[in-house]
Order: sequence, then C-alpha cells, then structure tokens
Amino acid sequence: MIKKITVLLLLSLGISTSAMAASPTADTVQASLDSMWVMIAAFLVFFMHAGFAMVETGFTRAKNALNILMKNFLTVSIASVLYFFIGFGLMFGSSAGGFAGMDGFFLSGREDIGFFLFQSVFAATCATIISGAVAERMKLKSYILLTIVMTGLIYPIVGHWVWGGGWISELGFVDFAGSTVVHLTGAVGALITVLFLGARIGKYSKGKANAIPGHNIPLGALGVFILWFGWFGFNGGSSLAADPELVPHVITTTLFSASAAILSSALYTLARFKRVDPSLTLNGALGGLVGITAGCANVSLTGSLIIGLIAGIILVESVTILDSKFKIDDPVGAIAVHGICGIWGTAAVGLFDIQNGLFYGGGASLLGVQMIGVGAVILWTSVTVGGFLFAVTRISSIRVSREEELSGLDFTEHGSNAYELKDTVLESNSAPSPFGTELVDRLNSIGSSSMNNVDHRNTV
Amino acid sequence: MIKKITVLLLLSLGISTSAMAASPTADTVQASLDSMWVMIAAFLVFFMHAGFAMVETGFTRAKNALNILMKNFLTVSIASVLYFFIGFGLMFGSSAGGFAGMDGFFLSGREDIGFFLFQSVFAATCATIISGAVAERMKLKSYILLTIVMTGLIYPIVGHWVWGGGWISELGFVDFAGSTVVHLTGAVGALITVLFLGARIGKYSKGKANAIPGHNIPLGALGVFILWFGWFGFNGGSSLAADPELVPHVITTTLFSASAAILSSALYTLARFKRVDPSLTLNGALGGLVGITAGCANVSLTGSLIIGLIAGIILVESVTILDSKFKIDDPVGAIAVHGICGIWGTAAVGLFDIQNGLFYGGGASLLGVQMIGVGAVILWTSVTVGGFLFAVTRISSIRVSREEELSGLDFTEHGSNAYELKDTVLESNSAPSPFGTELVDRLNSIGSSSMNNVDHRNTV
Amino acid sequence: MIKKITVLLLLSLGISTSAMAASPTADTVQASLDSMWVMIAAFLVFFMHAGFAMVETGFTRAKNALNILMKNFLTVSIASVLYFFIGFGLMFGSSAGGFAGMDGFFLSGREDIGFFLFQSVFAATCATIISGAVAERMKLKSYILLTIVMTGLIYPIVGHWVWGGGWISELGFVDFAGSTVVHLTGAVGALITVLFLGARIGKYSKGKANAIPGHNIPLGALGVFILWFGWFGFNGGSSLAADPELVPHVITTTLFSASAAILSSALYTLARFKRVDPSLTLNGALGGLVGITAGCANVSLTGSLIIGLIAGIILVESVTILDSKFKIDDPVGAIAVHGICGIWGTAAVGLFDIQNGLFYGGGASLLGVQMIGVGAVILWTSVTVGGFLFAVTRISSIRVSREEELSGLDFTEHGSNAYELKDTVLESNSAPSPFGTELVDRLNSIGSSSMNNVDHRNTV
Repeated sequence: MIKKITVLLLLSLGISTSAMAASPTADTVQASLDSMWVMIAAFLVFFMHAGFAMVETGFTRAKNALNILMKNFLTVSIASVLYFFIGFGLMFGSSAGGFAGMDGFFLSGREDIGFFLFQSVFAATCATIISGAVAERMKLKSYILLTIVMTGLIYPIVGHWVWGGGWISELGFVDFAGSTVVHLTGAVGALITVLFLGARIGKYSKGKANAIPGHNIPLGALGVFILWFGWFGFNGGSSLAADPELVPHVITTTLFSASAAILSSALYTLARFKRVDPSLTLNGALGGLVGITAGCANVSLTGSLIIGLIAGIILVESVTILDSKFKIDDPVGAIAVHGICGIWGTAAVGLFDIQNGLFYGGGASLLGVQMIGVGAVILWTSVTVGGFLFAVTRISSIRVSREEELSGLDFTEHGSNAYELKDTVLESNSAPSPFGTELVDRLNSIGSSSMNNVDHRNTV
Repeated sequence: MIKKITVLLLLSLGISTSAMAASPTADTVQASLDSMWVMIAAFLVFFMHAGFAMVETGFTRAKNALNILMKNFLTVSIASVLYFFIGFGLMFGSSAGGFAGMDGFFLSGREDIGFFLFQSVFAATCATIISGAVAERMKLKSYILLTIVMTGLIYPIVGHWVWGGGWISELGFVDFAGSTVVHLTGAVGALITVLFLGARIGKYSKGKANAIPGHNIPLGALGVFILWFGWFGFNGGSSLAADPELVPHVITTTLFSASAAILSSALYTLARFKRVDPSLTLNGALGGLVGITAGCANVSLTGSLIIGLIAGIILVESVTILDSKFKIDDPVGAIAVHGICGIWGTAAVGLFDIQNGLFYGGGASLLGVQMIGVGAVILWTSVTVGGFLFAVTRISSIRVSREEELSGLDFTEHGSNAYELKDTVLESNSAPSPFGTELVDRLNSIGSSSMNNVDHRNTV
Repeated sequence: MIKKITVLLLLSLGISTSAMAASPTADTVQASLDSMWVMIAAFLVFFMHAGFAMVETGFTRAKNALNILMKNFLTVSIASVLYFFIGFGLMFGSSAGGFAGMDGFFLSGREDIGFFLFQSVFAATCATIISGAVAERMKLKSYILLTIVMTGLIYPIVGHWVWGGGWISELGFVDFAGSTVVHLTGAVGALITVLFLGARIGKYSKGKANAIPGHNIPLGALGVFILWFGWFGFNGGSSLAADPELVPHVITTTLFSASAAILSSALYTLARFKRVDPSLTLNGALGGLVGITAGCANVSLTGSLIIGLIAGIILVESVTILDSKFKIDDPVGAIAVHGICGIWGTAAVGLFDIQNGLFYGGGASLLGVQMIGVGAVILWTSVTVGGFLFAVTRISSIRVSREEELSGLDFTEHGSNAYELKDTVLESNSAPSPFGTELVDRLNSIGSSSMNNVDHRNTV
C-alpha cells in the first residue's frame, strides 16, 4: 500500500529512479551503498562548520561573537557556490600539466554529483580555518574577499596537485583525508593573514603575551565534540566507498589519535603548568585529529596512538611558542592545530606507513616525498595569499579601526549584541533592577526596526 | 568468534532476522539499504528539533527560555504518540474521497514501521514551527492543546491531500519534501495563533515596532546549523529510497539554495541597512532551506541557486513588512521563514521544474496547480486553527497575564530560571561578592525541593 | 574519470579494498551495509558524549564547568585506549568459566574492528555516567583513577557476563542495548562514589535539601536532545546488522518510550508540584531512554509506551526520594536516570517481552532471570568500586578541599574560568564600564601565558 503510494509519488514527480528502472544487482546495490556512505560523510563534514563556529565563538570575546558567526556562515555559502562555478573544475578537471584542472566548471560533463558534494564541503573547511585566526580584528569584507580567493583558486590548485592527479600525487605523496591539502593550506593562509593583520589590541605589552580569555568555553568544548564527530565523516568518507575493512580502520585510527592527543596534552600541561589546561587539552584533541588525517588509512592502530600522543605535545608547545616567542596572535590556536599538527601528520605517514614508512623498513623516500609536498603547499599558499593581501592592503586596510576593535565588531559591523543576558536575567527577578529602566529607555530610543530580534542600536 | 556471539545474542533474543533467515539477494540488500537510509534520515529530522529549540531559545529573552524548551520537548512527544494513534492513519490510510485516510490507526494492518517513523518526526516539525511565533506570551497548556489538534488532525489531513493520495495530489501538485505540507501548514497555524494572541508587551508603541533582542544569538546560530544539517535528512530522506542519483541531487540543491539565500540576505541587508544583519542572515539560511524543500528533486542546480537567492531577499522583506506594516509580532520570524518562503518554494516548482516548469517551456499549468495547493492549505489551516482558537478563547485566555509576561514565563509557569550565571560566576572570585550573601539567604529560604538542580523560588 | 582517480588514489595508498578485489555479491554488499550501519551507529554513540558533557555542565554551577568538561573528554580518551589494551579482550575474548574473556587484548587475533569500535564507545558511556553524579567536588585525579578501573576492568567483566557469552547470558537474561550492562553499572559506580564523597557544601542543612540550581539549562536541554539523537545509534546499532525489520522497530520503541516519559514526567510534576518542572522533565526523557534500552527489540510499540510512561514517573519519584529522604547528592540525577530507570527497564523486559514476558503469558521466569542479572551487577559493581575507593581513600582524599570547592574547581584545578561574559559584554557598550578598568588591570597583572585564550589567574 505504502509502496504503491511511494511509487505514485515518485512517478508524480516525473522521476524514474535507477532502483525502479530495473531489478537491482549486486553491482547497483554496492554503487547505491557507496553513494549513501559518501552522502552521510558529507553531512558530517558539513556539520563540522557548526563545530568551527562554536569553537571560534567560544574561544574569543562576546563582543565579537556575531561577527565570527557571520564569517562562518558566509564561508560555507561562498565555498559551495564558488566550488561549483570554478573550484571543482580546477581541482578535478582534466589536468593541464599537473598544475590545474581545465574543465568540469559548473559540473559540465560530470555526473558524479555526490563526489562533488563531498569535495565541496571540504573546500569550505579549508577556508574557515582562517576565520578563527583572524578573529576579533579583520574586516568582514576583507575576510570575504580572501575566502573567495581561497575557495575559488588557492585550495583547488593544491587539491589538484595532490588529489586531482597533479604533480605531487605523481611523486607518491600520501594524504588520505587532507592533513596537508585541507588543514595545512588553511593554516598557512591563516598565518600569512595574521602577519598582515597584526595582534589584537592589548595582546602583547612590554614584550609580554597577555591572555585574552575566551568568553564561553563550554560552547567551545561543544564545538570540539562536534568537530570530532564530523571528522569521522571527514576521514571515513575519504574512502569514497563503503569498504567494510578500510572504513572501520580509518574510524578507529581517528578515534585513537584524538584520544591519545587529549591524554598527552592534558598530562603535558599538567607537567608543564601544574594543572590540566582546558583550552590546550581541547585544542589537543583537534591536533590529534589533524595529525591522523593524512595517515588514517595507512598506519596501524598502534601507529595512530603514537601519532596522537606526539600531536598533543606538539600542539601545546607550538601554541606556546607561536604566542610567546613569535608574538603571533592566533585567538583560537588555529595555526598550531591545523598547521603544525598538519605538518606532523603528513610527516608521520613517512614514518608510520605500514608499507613504506621509515619505521617499517620502507626507508626515507616516502618521508622525503611527504616533506616535498609540505614545502610546496607552504610555498604556494604563502606566495598567493601574501601576494593577494599585499595587493589588497595597497588599496585599503583589512583591519577594523582601533575604536571599532575596542567597541567590538558586533556593535560596529552588525549593530547588534550576541547576548542580552544581563537585562533579561535581572528582569526576571520581581524586584526592580538598576538595569530595568535603562533597558526600557534603550528600547524606546530605537527607531523603526527591521527585525524583531535584533537590537539595532545605531539610532541611539 | 564475534559472529558466533552475535548470532547467539540474536538467537537468545528470540529474533529471527530477515538477513539470517535466508541468504541475501540483491533485492533484499537493496531493501535493507533503503530502510537504513530512511532511518538515518529520520534521525536527522529528529535532530532538527534540537535546532528549533536552540533557535527559538536563543532568539528570545532569557526569562522565557525554559518555557520554550518545554514546548519543544512536549511537541516532539505529543506528535510521536498522537501520530501513532491517529495521525498516520488519517494521512496514509485508505482514502475516503480524497479527504482523509480511514484505516491504519495504531499502525494496525501496517508493516511499514520505518516509513511511519520518518513521517512521525515530520509531523512534529510542522507543529513546532508554531512554538517560535507564539513564544514569550502563550500559556503552556493552551499551546499543548493546539499541538494536539495540529499533529492529530490538521497536519495529517493536509498530508493526506498531498502525500497520501488525496485530492491535491490528483491535480499533479509537486511538493517533494514539504514546503507546503509541513512548513506552510505550520506557518499558517502560527499566524492565526499570533493574531489571537496579540503582540508582546512593549513590542509596539506609538505606532512603532521596537526591537526585543534575543538573549543568546550564538545558541540560535548553532540551532540554524543543526537545522541545516537535519534538513539534509528532511529532503534527502523524502526520496524514501537510497537512490544514487536522486539523493545526491537533492542534497546538493538543498546546500545550494541555503548558501545562495545566506549570500542574498547578507548582501540585501547590507544594501538596505548598511550592515550585514546577523539575525536576518541566519533566518535567510532557513528561508533558503524552506524555499528548496518543495522542488529539491525537480529543479536543476542552477535553479536551486536562483530559488535560494530570491528566498533570501523575500525573507528579509517579509520579516520587515510583517513587523513594521502589519504589526505581527513573531519573535523568531517563523511566519516569514516557513510561510512566505514556503509559498515561494512551492510556486518556484511551477517556474523551475525541469520538466513542466514555466521557465522550461512547460507552460503555466503546473504553476496554477501549485497555487491551488497553496491556497487550499492556507484556507484549511486558517479555518481549522481559527475555529479551534475561537472556541478555546470563549472558555479561557490562551495568553499569560501581564504580570506573568513581565516576570517571565520561566518564573511563573516553571518556578525556575534558565541561567544562574551571575551568582555562580561572581562566587568563583575569591573576594566576597555582594550577591554571595543574597544567594545563601535565598538558598536557605527554599523549602523542601523536588530536584537538586532546580531553584524553586515560589516559596520566597 | 573520477572513478579512475579514485582507483588511482586507493592504489597509491597501497590498499586493495574488498569492493575492488572482486565483483560484489549480495553477500559482500550485505556485509558492507552491516558494517556501515554499525559505523554510523558508533558515530552517534560517540556523539552522546557531547550530550553528557552539555547536560552535566548545564545542570551544575558555572564555577565547575571546565572541570566537568575535562572529565568528559578524558573519559572518552581513557576508555578508547584502555578498551583496546584490555577491556575488549576481557569482554569478548574466549571465556574463562563464564567470568571473563582471556584473549583478544590489543585486538590480537581479531579482525572485527568495526565491532570493537562500537563496543569501545559503549565502554566510555558507562564510565561517563559517574562524572555527573560526582560533579563539583571530586578531584580530577581521583576521578581519572576510577575511570581507569571502570573502563579497564569493572565494565568489561559485566559486559562479558551478559554480552560476551558469560554466565548471565547463559541464564537467558535479555539486555538488548544495555539498561543493565551500561547504565546500571555506571549508576551503581556513581552511587558508591557519592557515598564516599558526601554531599556538596550547602546541599543539606538542618535536615533539609537545598536546591543548587544548574547554571545553563538551555545547554543542558541541548545535551538531552543530543543524547536522544545518539541513543538511536546506541539502541539501533546494537542490532549489529542492517536488519530492515529489527532496526525500525528498535528506533520506534526508543522514540516512543522517551516521548511517553516526557509526557508522564511533565504531567506528574504538574500534579505533584503544580508546575511542569523543566529539569525533571528533561531527566524524564533520559529515564525513558534508559528504560527502553534493555527491551527495545523485544517489546511491542504499545509496550514501549507503557514502559516510558512508568519510567517518567519513577524518575521523578526517585530523584525526589534519593535527594530528600536519603540525602544522596547527585547534581544531575544520574543515579535515578541510569540506575533506577535501568533496573526498571531490565525488569520491564520480564513483563513486556512479547515472547516470554509475564504480561504475555510467559510466566515469571524471565522476570526472575532479569532480577538475578540486576542483582549480580549491583553486587559486583558495589563491591569492586567500593573496595577500590576504600583502598584509595586510605591513601588520600578523593575530594577537593572546602576552600577549593567554594572557589570552584575551574579556578583551583585549572586556573581558568568557563565564562567571561560580564566584562566582555559590558565592554561592548561605548560608555566606560565599572569593570573595564578592573579587566585591564587583571590582564596586565598576568605573567607569561601559555595560551592566548586561557586566563591563567594563578599569578594574580
């Protein structure tokens, strides 16, 4: 009965589905299963953007929360569209000399829309890494321009080199799910942009690094859990097929590396700072995930534990050194997480690959190839992002004014606040609160408003 | 070894599974795959309720947060149970003259429990749309009564007309995943209820609309991400089968429309208000998702981009007009998101359907059918919800008292607060805080308490 | 073209996948499908840890939020690693007299890595139940020690008895997804630990139970939604196969029981306390989920509704009684949710099992077996956890000092705060705030800091 309805429904839509067109065979069912697996993985990778948004919001100040959220939503949107227009073709089109793809723009001539979808949400991941590092001071418009260049050009070229049949892949470079392609590319973009931007006001004074605490660490911790959850799709979906041996292996190495990195960063901060540092441990989890991304299919379970243990310690040290020694102001630790741990993860394949790794008797040649790939991506991304930002900064500043930064980007760029906890909580007490009157005054002073739930204060 | 245990386990449960009863064939495996796909999609649709809850909580005031959360949880619960008792039968039972199903209550005579589950979480979605629009002033008990009518009667009838083989489906109406069936039905219910309720105190004064800012936009933004994530299951699962061509297409149009709507609403608010408006852009994402829901399987990728671009602008304008011109107080913009964009999405199929759409040479007949469907649903829902609320309001008010509204519904309906940030944060400083003593006094004044973690202040 | 790239990619990784090694047959595709289903279920069970973390954080005070989050992350990490080293072998290795497994440590000789992964995230669930009950007063290091014993020894032994072919399973005990194995074991561990720990300062005074309200109920409510979402994988994945009849049944009973428990706990608190109690209703949802976990595959849909209805009422009463009568201070209600409702769920199988249940003419023998299993698990867990804590407390206290508890564990154990809402929100106003100067002073007084986003105040 329902089957009849379903059939009627599908017929009424004018769609003849492959499952209905003919009896299924083992081949068609396997193809359907592979397709569903990649879809589900793509959903999880998409959901990582919620994780990024929560981590970046929670680990920075409340006065910039809306701005960061807007950057995250806009990154996903721009990446989806641009990757359709140009990125996918550059990355997976027929190769022009190993440098870039040259067809498949607008998916013309392509039928692999599921593969496109999966790759599309990857592209957005690469770009959004930058948003955390430049938080609290970069102009929204400048960030958008950079996102366009990253997702439309810089990332797809790297992707072509490694995953699209380009010159790095020819060398035998191994990066299963993107420690280098996605994470290092994003992190190098972040580093260069931070160098152009400079540190936030008050971050460094008298040669010392000051802490600027995040405003909502529980939200950031939720973000880390969401990222970890999504990473199972990120790494597991990179198999591109529902392989009953490969996928469980990939998922388990991913779980193990993150777990080991949490343990090592917690213990290492305990040894170094005499307490388990929550922010560094949360970033340790992410460092472990980035670290296993390149080798999740190629290393043993024990290998993944070691990679994670080392990633956790590297993360703590690199956050500390980037901040204290190099005075690089990265509010969420993105450069250490995605860059330093991305390099570690890529190198670790050269050491732990069960077939060609140095520790498995495979010699140093794979390690050498891995480092060539790392070097090439650093060079390419530095030069392109640097060149782009050099050009842009000739025309106008990419940084908000001092006054805007102090007031917060939410107020100056969006005319709103992320939270109204004070007034509303106090209001809920029966006793009249000192803020109650102020709230009423403020509400009355607001002119015509476009939206119920936005406090457009620019008329005050 | 494990296999043996598994078999023993299943045998010990007295369950003979179809996979064990006989060797699998391509047909049985395809059936299993289809079933798993619908299950996973149902999980995602279920998870949308977390998204609704966070959007509605974040975009309203802290003093009403618990009340909204309770409404969301109760909506899911009531819908699940009532849809089992009566809704599913009304919607998918054997049709009585195209108006309603007449059997299958309590799933009697039905074996398609997976299909039921998927439809059940849809029913809850329709009802929960109302909770956002009526937030901060509707009595919990009145809301519950309305939810019962919506999920037990009003929505299933609409569903029967369109998806259950009823009269609208006979016309050739296309609504793949429910722009009209789910979203417009919910939004019309919301509009009618808001007309009965009136605006929140302070929302309109001297002919002007005042902004009442949401208290936690990051939580609301997380909700939007969760809704978007869940929408992949909402639209993708509506295929009811793991089709390797249809599903990726549906997911990609869904991604594209939401992305395009974010871009257009961000740019449009920038042009109109001189800033990227966060709340309107977040609602723009939802508008793009509602807009593509009807046509996600029937329009091209380019079509989905255009639908989303227009949805984003429609959303901004309709929120503004409903608020400023019509003085309709919808705290979260639900009527614009689900209603206006639901109409747009349904109409858009008439324009962009690749087989019968106006822009594809199919003439205006499909567009006409689509508008008939929209009109019928608006009429049916208005009359039934209006009639029901007219009757109810003869007996008692559906709105809390002025005093209760000012104090907040959390305090008056639940005796609790959603947050205790002030006292606890201050407490964490070593210096004695001005609130510390008050807290102790307050705690001491509380009598016997039912629950550790609830501050039952009604004894104060 | 893409297929070629994929093949090249996989070949370049040196991996021959089963799907590529030979043409798929219905058997291999079914095996792949089963494997993917268990993977997806494992992702969902993993994500439950985000739910636990949000529930536990939201339902306790802000000054202990970081500590709770750390406990949650460390529990997942320790459980993953230890379960690999020892737990899985103890649970599923070849049985030594029905008491424990004796091989399979480090997965040696095992190829069922997907099954391991699924069981591994289960092990972490059992341990994390304790973290909520002991919140706000247990030392991090003591908690870690307990977690090691729970995940490395106590839980795997219980698991062997019931799921690993051990002596309880021989009796015919039914616990499909772990009401007893996972939830009751965790809850008994929690109860014993709370008895060693004692209540939080201020919880009981003059023979009365005082409420200590949670600081962020919306976050806790999100956690409940996440747990519910994850529970579909917890129960649904316990089928260990993509069975198109069993899985939808399990998911629907899970949805129904939780829904019914929400309704009954909401109505029961309304009747008992004259208001719908949000915290108890949220815990009611969890009680309904725990209650159906044992029988989700073995009871009818109507049975699941009744089980849930009763679970909701049991939850409310047991939270109240444990708190008021027994003065057991369980900040999040974990003992009632996982323990009392776990017992109820296990017993309910004896009543509602459609083949052998008392209410289905099966007599009382299954019920007797169920109670033997419950008794054995309570005895085993009490004795082992009690013995362990007795030994540990001879050496040092497992509870933080009074001063540390009053200051909050975040400050004393981690040197950080979870929130910086006050300063940052006030800062966003253009007018100078009374806290602004203090903030600057505080920032300047901080010495060299390891991490940008951590406020290491121990130098103040």
